[in-house]
Amino acid sequence: MSATPVFTLPDRRADSAVRLHPLLAGRWSPRGFDASYELTDAELTALLEAARWAPSAANAQPWRFLVGRRGAATFDAIVELLMPGNQAWAPRASLLMVAVADTTEAPTAPWAVYDTGQAVAHLSVQAEELGLAVHQMGGFDAAGVSERFGLAAELKPIAAVAVGRLDPAADLPEPFFERERAPRERRPVSELLIAS
Amino acid sequence: MSATPVFTLPDRRADSAVRLHPLLAGRWSPRGFDASYELTDAELTALLEAARWAPSAANAQPWRFLVGRRGAATFDAIVELLMPGNQAWAPRASLLMVAVADTTEAPTAPWAVYDTGQAVAHLSVQAEELGLAVHQMGGFDAAGVSERFGLAAELKPIAAVAVGRLDPAADLPEPFFERERAPRERRPVSELLIAS
Repeated sequence: MSATPVFTLPDRRADSAVRLHPLLAGRWSPRGFDASYELTDAELTALLEAARWAPSAANAQPWRFLVGRRGAATFDAIVELLMPGNQAWAPRASLLMVAVADTTEAPTAPWAVYDTGQAVAHLSVQAEELGLAVHQMGGFDAAGVSERFGLAAELKPIAAVAVGRLDPAADLPEPFFERERAPRERRPVSELLIAS
Repeated sequence: MSATPVFTLPDRRADSAVRLHPLLAGRWSPRGFDASYELTDAELTALLEAARWAPSAANAQPWRFLVGRRGAATFDAIVELLMPGNQAWAPRASLLMVAVADTTEAPTAPWAVYDTGQAVAHLSVQAEELGLAVHQMGGFDAAGVSERFGLAAELKPIAAVAVGRLDPAADLPEPFFERERAPRERRPVSELLIAS
Protein backbone atom coordinates (compact mmCIF):
# COMPACT_ATOMS: atom_id res chain seq x y z
CA MET A 1 0.00 0.00 0.00
CA SER A 2 1.23 3.52 -0.74
CA ALA A 3 0.92 6.50 1.56
CA THR A 4 -2.10 7.73 -0.40
CA PRO A 5 -5.02 8.23 2.00
CA VAL A 6 -7.94 5.92 1.27
CA PHE A 7 -10.33 8.82 0.69
CA THR A 8 -8.69 9.91 -2.55
CA LEU A 9 -8.68 8.27 -5.94
CA PRO A 10 -6.01 8.60 -8.62
CA ASP A 11 -6.81 10.65 -11.70
CA ARG A 12 -8.96 8.36 -13.80
CA ARG A 13 -9.55 10.56 -16.82
CA ALA A 14 -9.21 8.94 -20.22
CA ASP A 15 -5.65 9.11 -21.56
CA SER A 16 -6.47 10.19 -25.11
CA ALA A 17 -4.23 11.44 -27.93
CA VAL A 18 -6.39 14.54 -28.35
CA ARG A 19 -8.77 16.37 -26.06
CA LEU A 20 -12.08 14.64 -25.45
CA HIS A 21 -15.14 16.39 -24.08
CA PRO A 22 -14.85 16.32 -20.26
CA LEU A 23 -18.09 14.35 -19.93
CA LEU A 24 -16.48 11.56 -21.98
CA ALA A 25 -12.94 11.88 -20.64
CA GLY A 26 -14.08 11.98 -17.02
CA ARG A 27 -16.54 9.10 -17.21
CA TRP A 28 -15.60 5.78 -15.65
CA SER A 29 -17.47 2.97 -13.90
CA PRO A 30 -17.00 3.15 -10.14
CA ARG A 31 -18.19 0.76 -7.48
CA GLY A 32 -17.73 3.09 -4.54
CA PHE A 33 -21.09 4.81 -4.58
CA ASP A 34 -22.29 7.08 -1.78
CA ALA A 35 -24.70 4.78 0.05
CA SER A 36 -26.55 7.75 1.54
CA TYR A 37 -27.20 9.74 -1.63
CA GLU A 38 -30.80 9.79 -2.85
CA LEU A 39 -31.53 10.56 -6.47
CA THR A 40 -33.93 13.47 -7.00
CA ASP A 41 -36.98 13.20 -9.24
CA ALA A 42 -35.41 15.75 -11.62
CA GLU A 43 -32.22 13.68 -11.87
CA LEU A 44 -34.14 10.51 -12.65
CA THR A 45 -36.22 12.32 -15.25
CA ALA A 46 -33.10 13.74 -16.90
CA LEU A 47 -31.50 10.29 -17.09
CA LEU A 48 -34.59 8.80 -18.73
CA GLU A 49 -35.01 11.76 -21.08
CA ALA A 50 -31.39 11.36 -22.20
CA ALA A 51 -32.08 7.73 -23.05
CA ARG A 52 -35.36 8.67 -24.67
CA TRP A 53 -33.74 11.05 -27.17
CA ALA A 54 -31.03 8.65 -28.33
CA PRO A 55 -31.03 7.69 -32.01
CA SER A 56 -32.32 4.34 -33.22
CA ALA A 57 -32.94 2.43 -36.44
CA ALA A 58 -36.05 3.90 -38.06
CA ASN A 59 -36.63 5.70 -34.74
CA ALA A 60 -37.96 2.43 -33.27
CA GLN A 61 -36.72 3.38 -29.75
CA PRO A 62 -36.43 -0.24 -28.58
CA TRP A 63 -35.03 0.55 -25.12
CA ARG A 64 -37.10 -0.32 -22.07
CA PHE A 65 -36.15 -0.07 -18.42
CA LEU A 66 -36.79 -1.63 -15.06
CA VAL A 67 -36.02 1.15 -12.62
CA GLY A 68 -35.73 1.11 -8.86
CA ARG A 69 -34.44 3.70 -6.42
CA ARG A 70 -32.72 2.45 -3.28
CA GLY A 71 -35.44 1.47 -0.84
CA ALA A 72 -37.94 0.46 -3.52
CA ALA A 73 -39.03 -3.10 -4.17
CA THR A 74 -37.70 -3.02 -7.75
CA PHE A 75 -34.25 -2.04 -6.43
CA ASP A 76 -34.26 -4.97 -4.00
CA ALA A 77 -35.45 -7.34 -6.72
CA ILE A 78 -32.61 -6.26 -9.02
CA VAL A 79 -30.05 -6.67 -6.22
CA GLU A 80 -31.26 -10.24 -5.71
CA LEU A 81 -30.77 -10.97 -9.41
CA LEU A 82 -27.16 -9.68 -9.55
CA MET A 83 -24.20 -12.02 -9.48
CA PRO A 84 -22.67 -12.21 -5.98
CA GLY A 85 -19.64 -10.09 -6.96
CA ASN A 86 -21.92 -7.24 -7.95
CA GLN A 87 -24.10 -7.69 -4.86
CA ALA A 88 -21.03 -6.72 -2.82
CA TRP A 89 -21.09 -3.10 -4.02
CA ALA A 90 -24.16 -2.33 -6.17
CA PRO A 91 -26.58 -1.86 -3.23
CA ARG A 92 -24.68 1.37 -2.48
CA ALA A 93 -26.02 2.89 -5.71
CA SER A 94 -28.92 5.35 -5.62
CA LEU A 95 -30.61 3.68 -8.57
CA LEU A 96 -30.55 0.25 -10.12
CA MET A 97 -31.94 -0.39 -13.56
CA VAL A 98 -32.10 -3.22 -16.03
CA ALA A 99 -31.82 -2.13 -19.66
CA VAL A 100 -34.11 -4.24 -21.80
CA ALA A 101 -34.15 -4.43 -25.61
CA ASP A 102 -37.59 -4.79 -27.18
CA THR A 103 -37.15 -6.98 -30.26
CA THR A 104 -40.86 -7.05 -31.12
CA GLU A 105 -40.66 -4.83 -34.19
CA ALA A 106 -39.36 -7.19 -36.85
CA PRO A 107 -37.77 -4.75 -39.32
CA THR A 108 -35.64 -3.04 -36.68
CA ALA A 109 -35.14 -5.97 -34.29
CA PRO A 110 -31.56 -6.54 -35.55
CA TRP A 111 -30.63 -3.16 -34.04
CA ALA A 112 -32.64 -3.38 -30.81
CA VAL A 113 -29.68 -4.41 -28.67
CA TYR A 114 -27.26 -2.00 -30.38
CA ASP A 115 -29.67 0.90 -29.96
CA THR A 116 -30.34 0.01 -26.32
CA GLY A 117 -26.58 0.34 -25.82
CA GLN A 118 -26.74 3.79 -27.36
CA ALA A 119 -29.60 4.83 -25.08
CA VAL A 120 -27.72 3.76 -21.94
CA ALA A 121 -24.61 5.56 -23.23
CA HIS A 122 -26.65 8.75 -23.59
CA LEU A 123 -28.04 8.20 -20.09
CA SER A 124 -24.46 7.82 -18.84
CA VAL A 125 -23.34 11.10 -20.40
CA GLN A 126 -26.29 12.88 -18.78
CA ALA A 127 -25.44 11.23 -15.46
CA GLU A 128 -21.90 12.60 -15.70
CA GLU A 129 -23.34 16.06 -16.38
CA LEU A 130 -25.40 15.73 -13.17
CA GLY A 131 -22.34 14.75 -11.13
CA LEU A 132 -23.47 11.13 -11.04
CA ALA A 133 -21.67 7.99 -12.15
CA VAL A 134 -22.89 4.87 -13.91
CA HIS A 135 -21.60 1.32 -13.65
CA GLN A 136 -23.10 -1.23 -16.01
CA MET A 137 -23.06 -4.94 -15.28
CA GLY A 138 -23.39 -8.01 -17.45
CA GLY A 139 -23.27 -10.10 -14.28
CA PHE A 140 -26.94 -10.63 -13.51
CA ASP A 141 -29.52 -13.37 -14.01
CA ALA A 142 -31.28 -12.33 -17.22
CA ALA A 143 -33.64 -15.32 -17.18
CA GLY A 144 -34.43 -14.51 -13.57
CA VAL A 145 -35.25 -10.91 -14.51
CA SER A 146 -37.62 -12.10 -17.23
CA GLU A 147 -39.35 -14.42 -14.80
CA ARG A 148 -39.49 -12.02 -11.85
CA PHE A 149 -40.89 -9.16 -13.95
CA GLY A 150 -43.01 -11.30 -16.30
CA LEU A 151 -41.26 -10.13 -19.47
CA ALA A 152 -42.48 -11.36 -22.85
CA ALA A 153 -39.91 -13.36 -24.82
CA GLU A 154 -39.29 -10.41 -27.17
CA LEU A 155 -38.06 -8.30 -24.24
CA LYS A 156 -34.38 -9.12 -23.71
CA PRO A 157 -32.70 -7.98 -20.48
CA ILE A 158 -29.21 -6.88 -21.54
CA ALA A 159 -27.45 -4.99 -18.77
CA ALA A 160 -27.95 -4.05 -15.15
CA VAL A 161 -27.12 -0.40 -14.54
CA ALA A 162 -26.10 1.20 -11.24
CA VAL A 163 -26.31 5.00 -10.92
CA GLY A 164 -25.18 7.08 -7.98
CA ARG A 165 -22.80 9.61 -6.59
CA LEU A 166 -19.18 8.59 -6.27
CA ASP A 167 -17.83 8.34 -2.73
CA PRO A 168 -14.03 8.29 -2.99
CA ALA A 169 -13.87 7.18 0.65
CA ALA A 170 -16.13 4.16 0.12
CA ASP A 171 -14.78 1.24 2.12
CA LEU A 172 -15.12 -1.39 -0.60
CA PRO A 173 -14.25 -5.03 0.05
CA GLU A 174 -11.37 -6.46 -1.95
CA PRO A 175 -10.82 -6.97 -4.82
CA PHE A 176 -12.94 -3.88 -5.45
CA PHE A 177 -10.97 -1.40 -3.36
CA GLU A 178 -7.83 -2.05 -5.41
CA ARG A 179 -9.75 -2.28 -8.67
CA GLU A 180 -11.23 1.17 -8.04
CA ARG A 181 -7.67 2.53 -8.02
CA ALA A 182 -6.16 0.49 -10.86
CA PRO A 183 -5.00 2.23 -14.05
CA ARG A 184 -7.61 2.47 -16.78
CA GLU A 185 -6.65 0.75 -20.01
CA ARG A 186 -7.86 0.58 -23.56
CA ARG A 187 -6.64 -0.95 -26.83
CA PRO A 188 -4.82 1.58 -29.02
CA VAL A 189 -6.95 3.13 -31.76
CA SER A 190 -4.90 1.22 -34.33
CA GLU A 191 -6.37 -2.05 -33.06
CA LEU A 192 -9.90 -0.75 -33.64
CA LEU A 193 -9.39 -0.06 -37.33
CA ILE A 194 -10.10 -2.90 -39.74
CA ALA A 195 -9.73 -0.65 -42.75
CA SER A 196 -8.99 3.06 -43.10
CA MET B 1 -44.39 25.34 -48.62
CA SER B 2 -44.04 28.11 -46.06
CA ALA B 3 -42.14 31.33 -46.57
CA THR B 4 -39.22 29.93 -44.60
CA PRO B 5 -36.09 30.20 -46.72
CA VAL B 6 -34.63 26.82 -47.64
CA PHE B 7 -31.32 27.61 -45.96
CA THR B 8 -32.74 27.47 -42.46
CA LEU B 9 -33.89 24.49 -40.44
CA PRO B 10 -36.47 24.50 -37.66
CA ASP B 11 -35.27 24.13 -34.09
CA ARG B 12 -34.58 20.43 -33.75
CA ARG B 13 -33.49 20.27 -30.12
CA ALA B 14 -34.93 17.47 -28.02
CA ASP B 15 -38.22 18.43 -26.36
CA SER B 16 -37.47 17.09 -22.89
CA ALA B 17 -39.29 17.54 -19.57
CA VAL B 18 -36.08 18.71 -17.90
CA ARG B 19 -32.88 20.23 -19.22
CA LEU B 20 -30.57 17.84 -21.03
CA HIS B 21 -26.93 18.54 -21.66
CA PRO B 22 -26.73 20.57 -24.92
CA LEU B 23 -24.63 17.88 -26.60
CA LEU B 24 -27.51 15.44 -26.09
CA ALA B 25 -30.38 17.86 -26.62
CA GLY B 26 -28.87 19.30 -29.80
CA ARG B 27 -27.91 15.99 -31.41
CA TRP B 28 -29.95 14.72 -34.31
CA SER B 29 -29.28 12.74 -37.47
CA PRO B 30 -29.13 14.98 -40.52
CA ARG B 31 -28.77 14.04 -44.14
CA GLY B 32 -27.81 17.49 -45.41
CA PHE B 33 -24.08 17.32 -44.91
CA ASP B 34 -21.68 19.92 -46.27
CA ALA B 35 -20.27 18.11 -49.31
CA SER B 36 -17.16 20.31 -49.29
CA TYR B 37 -16.14 19.92 -45.66
CA GLU B 38 -13.04 17.80 -45.05
CA LEU B 39 -12.51 16.24 -41.66
CA THR B 40 -9.19 17.11 -40.03
CA ASP B 41 -6.85 14.46 -38.64
CA ALA B 42 -7.47 15.81 -35.13
CA GLU B 43 -11.23 15.50 -35.57
CA LEU B 44 -10.96 11.91 -36.78
CA THR B 45 -8.65 11.05 -33.89
CA ALA B 46 -11.05 12.60 -31.38
CA LEU B 47 -13.98 10.59 -32.78
CA LEU B 48 -12.05 7.34 -32.53
CA GLU B 49 -10.71 8.18 -29.06
CA ALA B 50 -14.25 8.84 -27.86
CA ALA B 51 -15.29 5.40 -29.08
CA ARG B 52 -12.14 3.87 -27.62
CA TRP B 53 -12.91 5.08 -24.10
CA ALA B 54 -16.50 3.85 -23.99
CA PRO B 55 -17.37 1.26 -21.34
CA SER B 56 -17.78 -2.42 -22.19
CA ALA B 57 -18.44 -5.75 -20.50
CA ALA B 58 -15.22 -6.80 -18.74
CA ASN B 59 -13.53 -4.01 -20.73
CA ALA B 60 -13.54 -6.25 -23.81
CA GLN B 61 -13.81 -3.25 -26.18
CA PRO B 62 -15.48 -5.23 -28.97
CA TRP B 63 -15.96 -2.27 -31.35
CA ARG B 64 -14.11 -2.25 -34.65
CA PHE B 65 -14.39 0.21 -37.51
CA LEU B 66 -14.07 0.49 -41.23
CA VAL B 67 -13.26 4.14 -41.80
CA GLY B 68 -13.06 6.15 -44.99
CA ARG B 69 -12.81 9.86 -45.56
CA ARG B 70 -14.50 11.26 -48.65
CA GLY B 71 -12.18 10.62 -51.57
CA ALA B 72 -10.69 7.43 -50.11
CA ALA B 73 -11.31 3.96 -51.53
CA THR B 74 -12.92 2.78 -48.29
CA PHE B 75 -15.43 5.64 -48.46
CA ASP B 76 -16.37 4.70 -52.02
CA ALA B 77 -16.65 1.03 -51.07
CA ILE B 78 -19.02 1.86 -48.21
CA VAL B 79 -21.15 4.07 -50.48
CA GLU B 80 -21.51 1.16 -52.90
CA LEU B 81 -22.73 -1.07 -50.06
CA LEU B 82 -25.43 1.36 -48.83
CA MET B 83 -29.07 0.92 -49.72
CA PRO B 84 -30.09 3.21 -52.60
CA GLY B 85 -32.02 5.57 -50.30
CA ASN B 86 -28.88 6.24 -48.30
CA GLN B 87 -26.74 6.54 -51.42
CA ALA B 88 -28.81 9.62 -52.27
CA TRP B 89 -27.38 11.69 -49.43
CA ALA B 90 -24.56 9.86 -47.59
CA PRO B 91 -21.83 10.67 -50.15
CA ARG B 92 -22.06 14.29 -48.91
CA ALA B 93 -20.62 13.21 -45.53
CA SER B 94 -16.97 13.86 -44.72
CA LEU B 95 -16.52 10.38 -43.27
CA LEU B 96 -18.24 7.06 -43.71
CA MET B 97 -17.68 4.23 -41.28
CA VAL B 98 -19.06 0.80 -40.64
CA ALA B 99 -19.29 -0.12 -36.96
CA VAL B 100 -18.41 -3.78 -36.50
CA ALA B 101 -18.93 -5.87 -33.36
CA ASP B 102 -16.19 -8.41 -32.63
CA THR B 103 -17.91 -11.44 -31.09
CA THR B 104 -14.72 -13.50 -30.85
CA GLU B 105 -14.34 -13.35 -27.06
CA ALA B 106 -16.85 -15.91 -25.85
CA PRO B 107 -17.52 -14.66 -22.30
CA THR B 108 -18.39 -11.13 -23.40
CA ALA B 109 -19.78 -11.89 -26.88
CA PRO B 110 -23.40 -11.43 -25.65
CA TRP B 111 -22.60 -7.73 -25.09
CA ALA B 112 -20.49 -7.11 -28.21
CA VAL B 113 -23.31 -5.52 -30.18
CA TYR B 114 -24.66 -3.57 -27.20
CA ASP B 115 -21.21 -2.20 -26.38
CA THR B 116 -20.55 -1.30 -30.01
CA GLY B 117 -23.71 0.80 -29.80
CA GLN B 118 -22.29 2.52 -26.76
CA ALA B 119 -19.01 3.26 -28.52
CA VAL B 120 -20.75 4.85 -31.50
CA ALA B 121 -22.93 6.86 -29.12
CA HIS B 122 -19.79 8.20 -27.42
CA LEU B 123 -18.36 8.98 -30.85
CA SER B 124 -21.55 10.86 -31.67
CA VAL B 125 -21.36 12.98 -28.52
CA GLN B 126 -17.75 13.89 -29.36
CA ALA B 127 -18.81 14.71 -32.92
CA GLU B 128 -21.43 17.11 -31.57
CA GLU B 129 -18.75 18.74 -29.41
CA LEU B 130 -16.66 19.26 -32.57
CA GLY B 131 -19.56 20.87 -34.43
CA LEU B 132 -20.06 17.73 -36.49
CA ALA B 133 -23.15 15.58 -36.93
CA VAL B 134 -23.61 11.83 -37.17
CA HIS B 135 -26.24 9.86 -39.04
CA GLN B 136 -26.27 6.11 -38.52
CA MET B 137 -27.79 3.73 -41.04
CA GLY B 138 -29.06 0.20 -40.78
CA GLY B 139 -29.68 0.30 -44.53
CA PHE B 140 -26.53 -1.28 -45.92
CA ASP B 141 -25.44 -4.66 -47.21
CA ALA B 142 -23.82 -6.27 -44.17
CA ALA B 143 -22.97 -9.48 -46.00
CA GLY B 144 -21.46 -7.40 -48.77
CA VAL B 145 -19.32 -5.52 -46.24
CA SER B 146 -18.05 -8.81 -44.83
CA GLU B 147 -17.18 -10.04 -48.29
CA ARG B 148 -15.66 -6.81 -49.60
CA PHE B 149 -13.44 -6.34 -46.52
CA GLY B 150 -12.75 -10.02 -45.87
CA LEU B 151 -14.22 -10.03 -42.36
CA ALA B 152 -14.08 -13.19 -40.27
CA ALA B 153 -17.47 -14.62 -39.30
CA GLU B 154 -17.08 -13.33 -35.71
CA LEU B 155 -16.91 -9.74 -36.98
CA LYS B 156 -20.49 -8.51 -37.39
CA PRO B 157 -21.10 -5.29 -39.36
CA ILE B 158 -23.89 -3.53 -37.45
CA ALA B 159 -24.31 0.03 -38.64
CA ALA B 160 -23.03 2.38 -41.29
CA VAL B 161 -22.14 5.78 -39.85
CA ALA B 162 -21.95 9.09 -41.72
CA VAL B 163 -20.12 12.00 -40.08
CA GLY B 164 -19.87 15.52 -41.37
CA ARG B 165 -20.75 19.15 -40.96
CA LEU B 166 -24.39 20.10 -41.31
CA ASP B 167 -25.27 22.27 -44.28
CA PRO B 168 -28.73 23.72 -43.61
CA ALA B 169 -28.89 24.81 -47.26
CA ALA B 170 -28.21 21.34 -48.63
CA ASP B 171 -30.41 20.73 -51.64
CA LEU B 172 -31.57 17.25 -50.72
CA PRO B 173 -33.82 15.23 -53.03
CA GLU B 174 -37.26 14.36 -51.69
CA PRO B 175 -38.34 12.76 -49.44
CA PHE B 176 -35.20 13.84 -47.59
CA PHE B 177 -35.64 17.60 -47.86
CA GLU B 178 -38.99 17.42 -46.04
CA ARG B 179 -37.76 14.76 -43.63
CA GLU B 180 -34.88 17.02 -42.60
CA ARG B 181 -37.49 19.55 -41.46
CA ALA B 182 -40.08 17.22 -39.91
CA PRO B 183 -40.78 17.39 -36.17
CA ARG B 184 -38.68 15.07 -34.05
CA GLU B 185 -40.68 12.55 -32.07
CA ARG B 186 -40.11 10.09 -29.27
CA ARG B 187 -42.26 7.82 -27.13
CA PRO B 188 -43.10 9.35 -23.74
CA VAL B 189 -40.86 8.21 -20.90
CA SER B 190 -43.83 6.35 -19.42
CA GLU B 191 -43.74 3.91 -22.34
CA LEU B 192 -40.09 3.10 -21.64
CA LEU B 193 -40.72 1.95 -18.07
CA ILE B 194 -41.59 -1.70 -17.57
CA ALA B 195 -41.35 -1.42 -13.80
CA SER B 196 -40.44 1.47 -11.52
